[in-house]
Amino acid sequence: MRDTQALATFLADLRYQDIPPAVLARTEDLFLDWLGSALASQGAHPVPLFERYAERMGPPAGKARLMSTGRGTSPYFAALVNGAASHLVEQDDLHNSSVLHPATVVFSAALAAAQDLDKSGPDLLLAAVAGYEAGIRIGEFMGRSHYRIFHTTATVGTLAAAVAVGKLMDFDQAQFIHVLGSAGTQAAGLWEFLRDAADSKQLHTAKAAADGLLAAYLTADGLSGARNILEGDQGLAAGMSSDADPARLSDRLGSRWALTETSFKFHASCRHTHPAADALLELMQREGLRHGDIADVIAHVHQGAIDVLGRVKVPTSVHQAKFSMGTVLGLIAVHGCAQLLTFRDLALSDPDVAAFRDKVRMQLDPEVDAAYPARWLGRVEVRCTDGRHFTAAIDEPKGDPGNTLSRAELEDKFQRLLAYAGQRSAADGRALIQRVWQLRDTRSLADLP
Amino acid sequence: MRDTQALATFLADLRYQDIPPAVLARTEDLFLDWLGSALASQGAHPVPLFERYAERMGPPAGKARLMSTGRGTSPYFAALVNGAASHLVEQDDLHNSSVLHPATVVFSAALAAAQDLDKSGPDLLLAAVAGYEAGIRIGEFMGRSHYRIFHTTATVGTLAAAVAVGKLMDFDQAQFIHVLGSAGTQAAGLWEFLRDAADSKQLHTAKAAADGLLAAYLTADGLSGARNILEGDQGLAAGMSSDADPARLSDRLGSRWALTETSFKFHASCRHTHPAADALLELMQREGLRHGDIADVIAHVHQGAIDVLGRVKVPTSVHQAKFSMGTVLGLIAVHGCAQLLTFRDLALSDPDVAAFRDKVRMQLDPEVDAAYPARWLGRVEVRCTDGRHFTAAIDEPKGDPGNTLSRAELEDKFQRLLAYAGQRSAADGRALIQRVWQLRDTRSLADLP
Repeated sequence: MRDTQALATFLADLRYQDIPPAVLARTEDLFLDWLGSALASQGAHPVPLFERYAERMGPPAGKARLMSTGRGTSPYFAALVNGAASHLVEQDDLHNSSVLHPATVVFSAALAAAQDLDKSGPDLLLAAVAGYEAGIRIGEFMGRSHYRIFHTTATVGTLAAAVAVGKLMDFDQAQFIHVLGSAGTQAAGLWEFLRDAADSKQLHTAKAAADGLLAAYLTADGLSGARNILEGDQGLAAGMSSDADPARLSDRLGSRWALTETSFKFHASCRHTHPAADALLELMQREGLRHGDIADVIAHVHQGAIDVLGRVKVPTSVHQAKFSMGTVLGLIAVHGCAQLLTFRDLALSDPDVAAFRDKVRMQLDPEVDAAYPARWLGRVEVRCTDGRHFTAAIDEPKGDPGNTLSRAELEDKFQRLLAYAGQRSAADGRALIQRVWQLRDTRSLADLP
Repeated sequence: MRDTQALATFLADLRYQDIPPAVLARTEDLFLDWLGSALASQGAHPVPLFERYAERMGPPAGKARLMSTGRGTSPYFAALVNGAASHLVEQDDLHNSSVLHPATVVFSAALAAAQDLDKSGPDLLLAAVAGYEAGIRIGEFMGRSHYRIFHTTATVGTLAAAVAVGKLMDFDQAQFIHVLGSAGTQAAGLWEFLRDAADSKQLHTAKAAADGLLAAYLTADGLSGARNILEGDQGLAAGMSSDADPARLSDRLGSRWALTETSFKFHASCRHTHPAADALLELMQREGLRHGDIADVIAHVHQGAIDVLGRVKVPTSVHQAKFSMGTVLGLIAVHGCAQLLTFRDLALSDPDVAAFRDKVRMQLDPEVDAAYPARWLGRVEVRCTDGRHFTAAIDEPKGDPGNTLSRAELEDKFQRLLAYAGQRSAADGRALIQRVWQLRDTRSLADLP
């Protein structure tokens, strides 16, 4: 209870002017990255199912907007649809130690409420920071045992979304306690769907954002919640974790900005391929090699990579290609990148990629394996057709906090996400980017996107 | 997986004409009882919070109706508000071995969807039977360990509601598997709120009904769900139970009608007082006693009754009075009943009730204690002012399956629930009762209530 109260006090006391400028700038980065992910899934199953549900169940208009269609609706349905949309292409951000994807739940709820409540850019940034700081700490609190069965972005995401909306409503400490109670008692989301590749991942992020928003609106109106939903004997950790650590809830509040520890996803492939992809790209650029110069590649990996990627030899679907180390390194070697469009258009059809794929093998590397999962080391070894031999090493994959994306790289990624959906021009994209970089000076969010 | 598939097959194959007439009649009874509970809470906190939420987030009109205000809305919000309303006065039904209150989740979702989809009375009854049969078996499957931390009516209620709406939509076996997956992965609800008497109980039933409905509408549109959400390694039981028994899922499907095992709540007090209240009432009627004739009463009870009721000597609130054995028996002795209005108007203020309260004491009874919780035995011992001594015994409290309420008694209870809210006349009540008794011949549910 003490740690929950400390967290609630921090959330209530947090003021825009207390947030370091670098944290605000990073929040803008994360918002752009979220917006790109939401726009990229336009029209892709199952997002239209959620759009139709919003049309059937919701009001015919409203101040909150669906990112996919631009349609106005109530904030509940905007949070629902945008939550479903922004996690679909799996390009949204990730916080490592909490195993939480914060953006898809926090921004989906916060932007919807901000539009509904006529809030400003700074209000949105403040709300997002509150949602990230709370959500990441609650995810860490719930521990690894929780993640084995429960999809943390769904469960903890409900609380993160509720906190963000509560901050937009200027909740005091008591209201933050109530909203954690009402959000926590709605927390749900099981990994079982993975076995069947069912659509629940989108249902999870949709519901987490929407349920969190519902908790905040009802709390503002006077609904009370359990005072100790996180740590109590019949609370979230008691029911869904065996290694919860309450101290994480109040870890360095106000001095540690957990939001800045978030990773951007760079390649559109399984994350276990990223370290080797980065190392190969660096090696080829450094030595001026082209794909035809290379006779074979050894990717030195951790055991987890072999477990997850080892089964795919010749991929038969684009999704499977993202779990093929040979295909990913082939796209990097032949096309210089492994983005959404590269996968869709080239991963299965390009004979050069297929040829390169057969030159790649993985090998368990004790150093790489020992460092995992705290560090994801990239080590590749290349033998050229002319007999030369090169190695390259990267110690932090591109997009991780110590090797984060520059604004230029984030802009590139954003434009690629837009191009993937094919619904907006690059000029549209540039205009949206400019609006996001000006969030700190934005009075109205009404016409986003 | 085998038991889940058997359950889904039963649900898909279930036809109206396969349901015994007595089961259909009991379903009408349960519906009337639910309707009374929903109407009784009109205007009572926190129901208006949910009504305002529906107004703010939902459409301005729609075919589904809020029981409380009669307003039209989309089925999602009707399920939400009616789910919040129908569990509030704690007079809705209960299934003992599953510890599930089925009506509040099943009928809240099913009536909303039936109105939206222009379904008939028989359609509603069929849907309710499906929801009860599935919900009760899933509750039994989840076991006692689940109920220790989780509010089964919230968690399992989400699946029961989803099944009922799925049946209205004529789902096939594959769709029932999907809808169980999408409902099960939303299942949530923790007991932690009890400690603070927070408003989460209404949030739980509201969300269970609404989330179940959401799962069904999305499933109808094509959303896929986990195929083994109940029994899977990362499913509901894996995450939230330690004594799950899959055989319960398919227990005597089609021959055991679990719906008929449901108890109606008769007295408006804590259930631990009901056996003694029934025994005292029987004794006084049998012997023609009035409260002034009685010198003292011993209620022979199980240990659980002493644990729960033993702390209240002189109640200071109406809610507390429901946990005072003396007050309950005083209301029975002086006024012949212990209903919602009796409690509100007389439990704290009537000097005769207070005087009788002081004549009552509880005593642990080995026979009563040994039978509990399978059987709730009522044993009272009365000594009169003139020295006479009487005992009475009832073996099943009023409202339990073997001592269920007659239609006349259900009608009385319904009228009392309406009178409690004070918004509708007895003539209105009679008209509603007649409509419910004609459900089997009703083409349109559009203008209920």
